[in-house]
Amino acid sequence: MNLIDQLSEKQKHIHSLESIAGLLGWDEQTLLPEDSADQRQDQNATMAKVIHQAETDPEIGRILEQLETQAAKHETAPILRDARRDYDRSTKLPASWVEKRARLCSEAYHAWAAARKNNDFPSYIPYLQRHLDLAKEGAELLGWGDRPYDLQIDLHDPGVDAATIDQLFSSLKSDLVPIVQTIVNSPTKARADIFKGFPVAEQKAFLEDVTASLGFNYKRGRIDISLHPFCSGNGADTRMTTRFDVDNPLDSLFSSIHETGHGIYEQGLPLDSLHNALGKAAGMGAHESQSRLWENQVSRSRSFWKYYEPKFRAAFPKQLEDISSDELYLAINSVSQNPIRVDSDEVTYNLHIIIRFEIEKKLFSGELAINELPEYWNAQYKELLGIEPKNDAEGVLQDVHWSGGAFGYFPSYCLGNMLAAQLWYAATEQLPELEEDFTRGDFSRLLGWLREKVHKNGARYHLLELSQHATGQTLSPQPLIRYLKERYLPLYS
Amino acid sequence: MNLIDQLSEKQKHIHSLESIAGLLGWDEQTLLPEDSADQRQDQNATMAKVIHQAETDPEIGRILEQLETQAAKHETAPILRDARRDYDRSTKLPASWVEKRARLCSEAYHAWAAARKNNDFPSYIPYLQRHLDLAKEGAELLGWGDRPYDLQIDLHDPGVDAATIDQLFSSLKSDLVPIVQTIVNSPTKARADIFKGFPVAEQKAFLEDVTASLGFNYKRGRIDISLHPFCSGNGADTRMTTRFDVDNPLDSLFSSIHETGHGIYEQGLPLDSLHNALGKAAGMGAHESQSRLWENQVSRSRSFWKYYEPKFRAAFPKQLEDISSDELYLAINSVSQNPIRVDSDEVTYNLHIIIRFEIEKKLFSGELAINELPEYWNAQYKELLGIEPKNDAEGVLQDVHWSGGAFGYFPSYCLGNMLAAQLWYAATEQLPELEEDFTRGDFSRLLGWLREKVHKNGARYHLLELSQHATGQTLSPQPLIRYLKERYLPLYS
Repeated sequence: MNLIDQLSEKQKHIHSLESIAGLLGWDEQTLLPEDSADQRQDQNATMAKVIHQAETDPEIGRILEQLETQAAKHETAPILRDARRDYDRSTKLPASWVEKRARLCSEAYHAWAAARKNNDFPSYIPYLQRHLDLAKEGAELLGWGDRPYDLQIDLHDPGVDAATIDQLFSSLKSDLVPIVQTIVNSPTKARADIFKGFPVAEQKAFLEDVTASLGFNYKRGRIDISLHPFCSGNGADTRMTTRFDVDNPLDSLFSSIHETGHGIYEQGLPLDSLHNALGKAAGMGAHESQSRLWENQVSRSRSFWKYYEPKFRAAFPKQLEDISSDELYLAINSVSQNPIRVDSDEVTYNLHIIIRFEIEKKLFSGELAINELPEYWNAQYKELLGIEPKNDAEGVLQDVHWSGGAFGYFPSYCLGNMLAAQLWYAATEQLPELEEDFTRGDFSRLLGWLREKVHKNGARYHLLELSQHATGQTLSPQPLIRYLKERYLPLYS
Repeated sequence: MNLIDQLSEKQKHIHSLESIAGLLGWDEQTLLPEDSADQRQDQNATMAKVIHQAETDPEIGRILEQLETQAAKHETAPILRDARRDYDRSTKLPASWVEKRARLCSEAYHAWAAARKNNDFPSYIPYLQRHLDLAKEGAELLGWGDRPYDLQIDLHDPGVDAATIDQLFSSLKSDLVPIVQTIVNSPTKARADIFKGFPVAEQKAFLEDVTASLGFNYKRGRIDISLHPFCSGNGADTRMTTRFDVDNPLDSLFSSIHETGHGIYEQGLPLDSLHNALGKAAGMGAHESQSRLWENQVSRSRSFWKYYEPKFRAAFPKQLEDISSDELYLAINSVSQNPIRVDSDEVTYNLHIIIRFEIEKKLFSGELAINELPEYWNAQYKELLGIEPKNDAEGVLQDVHWSGGAFGYFPSYCLGNMLAAQLWYAATEQLPELEEDFTRGDFSRLLGWLREKVHKNGARYHLLELSQHATGQTLSPQPLIRYLKERYLPLYS
């Protein structure tokens, strides 16, 4: 067997184990009987052990060393690049560090949940401090000791660093704040309380129709119910989830479309390469660009609703009879000053992210101490969003991410929003009839363009190269600003 | 760490991996998207590899050797006995034999399905022959070369051999054939076509109520839908399935109760010992005794229906309004001459098994050649059941078992029926008020008795010892005969 096939065999084994661990995680959040969590914890630990064994197989190191002495071929270069990175990251972090982190994640999660419940940030400080220390220690071990925050970002979006994000976000911020102010000062206000009594079975049928039309392949995927919507699995078997509220049909619908965007991306990755870089997603930002593009640019558009409004009314004739088309469209594109990130709209969302990025950067540089977090958080919310959280529970304690040591994760959401808008304008420029397609419920041309420009490349290009490859442009906040102005200012002027 | 703890750690790892493989199997039959089977095959192969690695870990051999030099303690003796057996069976069969068998199972399954569809037994002969040869080869490798069929039986019910079954079955047969004749010659006939239009949602609610009352713990288990009902998982997370037919509510109900019997057994095994003999089922026969006891002795009884008939009628008032109590009870205890084992009732079922046992025994001894099977099969059905299969598809080709090389599996069903009846009379003798309990929908006293006599022992006692331990009697067909006479002769006299 040649060396690249040997590597492939090892990677297939790792991928298969990871896909199994993924199914355990999906089942845990959708179907697991309430008292069976103890066994699932054991199973998760077992899979983590078996996966770590497979990832650190010294044979992989030997194969890589030999392959790296050969001239890299175009097709295999990205495979070797990411295989080396992953092997180094798995082998350089000693078991003691990995275990310490796993234990801390579990402890910090419970500490966070209690702190949020009791609105008690001080009790959470020691856990955050230990996470920060451990992240820095990990950076040392991996040779990123001088740029520990850049490592965190790189873990989510390879090739991106804090300086790059700084530039992008400061430009975005200065353009975005006035837009938000225009909208919130507008007398036009969307009303959320107009939706009442939408039966779950009909909601499910409607959203399955929509998501299948957008391009989700239900022969290789499912949608089930969980507390928080997510998309797991891979293109061979994609498991999305949603949740239902009879008085909030737009929440289920748009979160399903969001997860559908993730699912469509996974289903567009080359099925024969799921085990290596050619069949993996390009990173968190790229993934989020796909979910956002389908959720926002496509499914909140007038052209989308030109086709779907009659169907929506046919599914819920009574419930919608007193709601005008304008009211419906405004509710779909509602903007408000919400202190909670996950409840916020696509306009203000980016400011929530910018605040978190600034904080993470300052935590890693030492400019900000953990006990100063609440004060800084609240001041930033006041300045950028014009609101002040009532308390730390709806302020600095709102997100779970840091309790899992997931620093450098938040920026990807906003990078994804930027890429989504940039892809959108590139697509509509090349295919001016796209929106016309939507009015007939046809999304295949957009899907085909994304398959070609984004999906089929796997992780050959990481975020910044992907932007260049797919749109011919460097990643920039300007398309996002243009899109938000075009979509929202006419509504709220 | 002492040696027994070291063994325990290895066994916990194996058990955890097996429980994960079990979940993959459950998901495959309940939820897997139709085009995702390819990935599941890879995942199953990955788990088989990882489990085999864990089972053959030479460290287990070293630990066992050391433990075996020490005087066995009462508590650990069964653990060592089964651990040694499993380790030897895993290590003595070379990878080449295991792979050959796995490949043959897959090929033979497809050959069987095609043969059944086309009613073409000859095309299936070579696969059966290879399975028989491979089973004999496996017996040689495991040191059972002189008793290859005994090994097959031992794989399903440790400690039982063909000579023991021969004795049990010949006595059962001579008593059972006249009972069946009396019933089928009776003018009393149950009518199956009286059930029409039972909505699935109401069927599901009713059977969940029943199975929870019997003792299934839904906080550590679920019931979902699959093509063929089964019970998988373990006591920490028990996954049963059923299927629904709007015109056959008794099928869903009784197959759910059957699986509930399996589930209740699993849920009664000691949760802290699921990884060793103290927390595993005593064998297939013991498992089947539990499913049959709840399905037949309990849930087809007059006392059970005294409580549940009003509830059943309340759930389906219209559908049952023209069906009298006698008609309902007769349909629940319907007996007929059916050529198909899985469609047969609890009376004739045993004859289906006896025929299969005779055939397997003769195949392994060489008394019967595979090409003689159809003729022998049909003659036996004529003699014992008074019917002749229309063709091989509804005759010798009806069961999947042999295509998977599962010889020695069928007898366990009938051994389970025997033990169920024997447990039933032991329980009612010690607790005469049991049936009175059922008329109030209370099954807790029977459950407690089974927990104590059967479940809590795990695999400490295998089938024959378990019978002795739980009932004070050697396993015998007489209680089963007594039960069938008492239940069925009054109905069909």
